[in-house]
Amino acid sequence: MKIQSVTPELSLKRSVDSGTDEQRAAVQKIIQAVRSDGDAALFTYTKLFDQAELDSMRVTQAEIEEAYSEFPEHITQVIKEAAENIFTFHQKQLRETWTYTDQNGTMLGQKMTPLDSAGVYVPGGTAAYPSSVLMNVLPAKVAGVKRIVMVSPPGPDGRLPAGVLVAADIAGVEEIYKVGGAQAIAALAYGTETIRPVDKITGPGNIYVALAKREVFGDVDIDMIAGPSEIAVLADESARPVEIAADLLSQAEHDTRASSVLVTPSQRLAEETAAEVERQLAGLPREAIARKAIEHYGAIYVTRDIQEAIDVVNQLAPEHLEVMTENAMNVVERIRHAGAIFIGRFSSEPIGDYFAGPNHVLPTNGTARFSSPLNVDDFMKKSSLIMYSEQAFNENVDKIAAFARLEGLEAHARAVEARKIK
Amino acid sequence: MKIQSVTPELSLKRSVDSGTDEQRAAVQKIIQAVRSDGDAALFTYTKLFDQAELDSMRVTQAEIEEAYSEFPEHITQVIKEAAENIFTFHQKQLRETWTYTDQNGTMLGQKMTPLDSAGVYVPGGTAAYPSSVLMNVLPAKVAGVKRIVMVSPPGPDGRLPAGVLVAADIAGVEEIYKVGGAQAIAALAYGTETIRPVDKITGPGNIYVALAKREVFGDVDIDMIAGPSEIAVLADESARPVEIAADLLSQAEHDTRASSVLVTPSQRLAEETAAEVERQLAGLPREAIARKAIEHYGAIYVTRDIQEAIDVVNQLAPEHLEVMTENAMNVVERIRHAGAIFIGRFSSEPIGDYFAGPNHVLPTNGTARFSSPLNVDDFMKKSSLIMYSEQAFNENVDKIAAFARLEGLEAHARAVEARKIK
Repeated sequence: MKIQSVTPELSLKRSVDSGTDEQRAAVQKIIQAVRSDGDAALFTYTKLFDQAELDSMRVTQAEIEEAYSEFPEHITQVIKEAAENIFTFHQKQLRETWTYTDQNGTMLGQKMTPLDSAGVYVPGGTAAYPSSVLMNVLPAKVAGVKRIVMVSPPGPDGRLPAGVLVAADIAGVEEIYKVGGAQAIAALAYGTETIRPVDKITGPGNIYVALAKREVFGDVDIDMIAGPSEIAVLADESARPVEIAADLLSQAEHDTRASSVLVTPSQRLAEETAAEVERQLAGLPREAIARKAIEHYGAIYVTRDIQEAIDVVNQLAPEHLEVMTENAMNVVERIRHAGAIFIGRFSSEPIGDYFAGPNHVLPTNGTARFSSPLNVDDFMKKSSLIMYSEQAFNENVDKIAAFARLEGLEAHARAVEARKIK
Repeated sequence: MKIQSVTPELSLKRSVDSGTDEQRAAVQKIIQAVRSDGDAALFTYTKLFDQAELDSMRVTQAEIEEAYSEFPEHITQVIKEAAENIFTFHQKQLRETWTYTDQNGTMLGQKMTPLDSAGVYVPGGTAAYPSSVLMNVLPAKVAGVKRIVMVSPPGPDGRLPAGVLVAADIAGVEEIYKVGGAQAIAALAYGTETIRPVDKITGPGNIYVALAKREVFGDVDIDMIAGPSEIAVLADESARPVEIAADLLSQAEHDTRASSVLVTPSQRLAEETAAEVERQLAGLPREAIARKAIEHYGAIYVTRDIQEAIDVVNQLAPEHLEVMTENAMNVVERIRHAGAIFIGRFSSEPIGDYFAGPNHVLPTNGTARFSSPLNVDDFMKKSSLIMYSEQAFNENVDKIAAFARLEGLEAHARAVEARKIK
């Protein structure tokens, strides 16, 4: 792992795959076919892309029960406990409607309403993570979304992975369809005979899913398009290289484009961590992936002091940040940009991926400068409330009409003034 | 104004102008030119599109003072009072960082941080509204954004409208540049010698501005692209047709594609309001615009009862909703989808445009189903906090490692387990 110098151009940004013209055209064609042919198009594409011939897309109660019986019981228990932790954390994010009445009797406020419905996309194959099901579904549940729909591509045997079904059932999803790709996104956005449309679509997917989400955005809401995973570790002499190296590799194994960075004022820690990374890489089942990620997007920055290390982290705005220093909370206070901050020796990043409670859907590619973890607000919307009193009206009608006329909007002025006439 | 029947396909959706291929190509070319040539490109485009030859783009203190001296003093006072109301309302939206510690000593939380910087676009010409300056800038101020930048195209005399400068100064903007169009958006996103880049861009603009915002999205955050204005009035026999008609026309005068809708169980109210609209249209300065909007996008729906009227409104998800009925709060509780809700006779919609305090940047085109008024959250982001205790670690390490291995992520399991080894 390279020990590098701090430069003004530090960035975790990697180019975003925005698809080829052919891919975009293919996605548009699929969306169009689903809009005009509905279910028939879904069955056709599922046969074409997933090699699965289905009679019906909706997952049955019998399939859920079968999934439980196939799935390791001790992991089912872990998923239940994780779901409880995630639910508890997200409940703290829930905000109520509020109003206040000022002295002249005018009531103002903000009404909070859950979305009517949400759709969660779950990728197929090795990326079918039960933990992602929990992280996408539970914030919507906490928000109070009544209808939560899950879609996921079936295997050639026409089935979904047991872990995905178990997690969905634990999270309380009652509508699951065996359909994936751009066709599933189109169905969620526009509806078919079987699948009623939803208001918002979240969840990761391949380039076709990402392009389809971009395409339907505006007609429905979508979450952000996630980039490759990132971790930055901010550590001083009090931290242990063996633990830092293990955490850096836990991100690196995700993706050859994942980024793992250590920022430290300690030359000794830098060198020992570099050696540990090399040592631990050997023998990882996903060694080839992790090694490529470390070589291309891994870095160790040695800084003058802790303050410069904090500056580097704020510049990177990493998805995950671990702070392993003396007086860690004092450091955390000076962090402005990071998706999730893991503090102290026992907060290894995977604890957040699976179990602690905060969401693992986090802003990547430097967008932690302006974006947030997936949260309950993402599944609610606000409506402003204005109940003007007669007294407030009489005090302000002339001012408001004058302001409207200044902007050249006479009908605005007259609308307010219409109340002056009995 | 047509009295129509309620059908299952009711919608306020109008096609969104997504630009021509030529417009998109022009915008891409402008952005590229600003990225490579910086200020020089801005001066060139300002000369080309705004016929203004500038030596310097930044508005000086002398120009601000001149604006105050030119601008009607009584409107300056109204703007100050409106700014105070808007500031006060948005302060109620401000959320603090929170943490909690559970019984095994684990601390979890959510850190709230304002964006470092925000850019506000203000259109030129007749659409240069001082009220929009307040509504875009003040939520960012309340959030605690340190650097707020305003851009707006100058007139051929090289100046910005006095009202825009006065409103910007009252709102506390300290960095204003005379540059508009796609070139201004490019400068805000990528920076030039004079204009440092920002993290988020908000504010309305023409099709070139909208396309440029779409283009830079991802590198910076943007607000939603607003569609034409909408109002729905939900009224019963207790409401006055003369006031309803005036409010419907206040939206219709904005734009030939604005939508004004009355929903009422009262046939009498429907007929009298239709007649009033006709009467009040005559003699409006913007009569031609308002008449076109009413003809194409205006409608009166007579419903069986109040509940059906509520259902219609929820289906429309209007930007603005007025509720003028008996027991109005009871009706408001059943509204799920609306950007801003104006309750009672004295809450004429323009009061919210200018003065009451809630934001006038609202979701249009049915997006109130999932979107919110511009608010303080739009200028802050969340970071999750996780400080796991040794006790919690020991209790859960094996479960977390098992979950990770189930997902095929061995390095995740090893990262957690690394803490078990001394």
